[in-house]
Amino acid sequence: MERCRLVFSGSGGQGVITAAIILAEAAVVHENRQAVQSQSYGAAARGGATRGDVIISDEPIDFPKVIQPNILIALTQEAYSKYQNIIRPGGLLITDQHYVTTSRKVDAIQAELPLYDTVMEKIGKPVVFNISMLGALIALRPLVMQSSIEKVLEARFPWEFLALNKIALEVGIEVGSRFA
Amino acid sequence: MERCRLVFSGSGGQGVITAAIILAEAAVVHENRQAVQSQSYGAAARGGATRGDVIISDEPIDFPKVIQPNILIALTQEAYSKYQNIIRPGGLLITDQHYVTTSRKVDAIQAELPLYDTVMEKIGKPVVFNISMLGALIALRPLVMQSSIEKVLEARFPWEFLALNKIALEVGIEVGSRFA
Repeated sequence: MERCRLVFSGSGGQGVITAAIILAEAAVVHENRQAVQSQSYGAAARGGATRGDVIISDEPIDFPKVIQPNILIALTQEAYSKYQNIIRPGGLLITDQHYVTTSRKVDAIQAELPLYDTVMEKIGKPVVFNISMLGALIALRPLVMQSSIEKVLEARFPWEFLALNKIALEVGIEVGSRFA
Repeated sequence: MERCRLVFSGSGGQGVITAAIILAEAAVVHENRQAVQSQSYGAAARGGATRGDVIISDEPIDFPKVIQPNILIALTQEAYSKYQNIIRPGGLLITDQHYVTTSRKVDAIQAELPLYDTVMEKIGKPVVFNISMLGALIALRPLVMQSSIEKVLEARFPWEFLALNKIALEVGIEVGSRFA
């Protein structure tokens, strides 16, 4: 498989760093691949735009930061404005219709998903929005298998929250599949 | 302040990545500094040795991975064996007496702390061991203020767990102070 360079961006409370870590763990622990995950905190972290980078590869990865992602996920208008110009030409840009309302054409496949609204309608808890985003992501690009993410969730969440997170993953896969 | 390059290492369940993220957030969000935090997952992640890197600086940081840490924290024998040789000469090496029993002389200040045993004696819950390690760290090197870590804990943990985590931080500060 090809090397994937991915940037999750959004605001602090949306769980973008957790999503990045779960994705990297799924790839490595359950699919025998290499991954690097990093976050840079600067003025942006204080202002609101949080960013988590993930590189997944079959080869060792020397430089852990993503310069030009082939997948960019932007979960707030601020994150979108800040990062939309770094996407690799022809890449995939995933945004959420509830949070990113003003987008301009970029040289990328633009998946503007109704993810937040679907999560609120079907689950009613915004706390699992990041897990749903992981579901939408793997529906759009088969980076890791659903079962690998589920195994990470099983190791991470106590049983009271596990079912909720698995449902959130399913909801995201459904939303992503509709776009795909 | 000087640039600090730090590596937290241990096993997956010890919360070393969470500790690295909390430290980076404390520095950036509450102390107006720059930080980068990253993890590399490879064969090691499957075998057991997990590693989280943190760089804290007053300048922007270009390369987010730590090559030669000036502070190395090793929480398992395996992590110790794997990483003890990367520490910067004259640096600080922190281990836990419960987990790392066989250590050889390296060119560093070696703080072999009875942290796990103290946490189990005073709190009885190993789940807060990583937070105690952060406490010991800031007692040994004033990287961030205790209040900055507490603010990150407040934003991160629901109130049922917050008190426990604050006590764990205190216990770690006490253990670190005794060594210092």
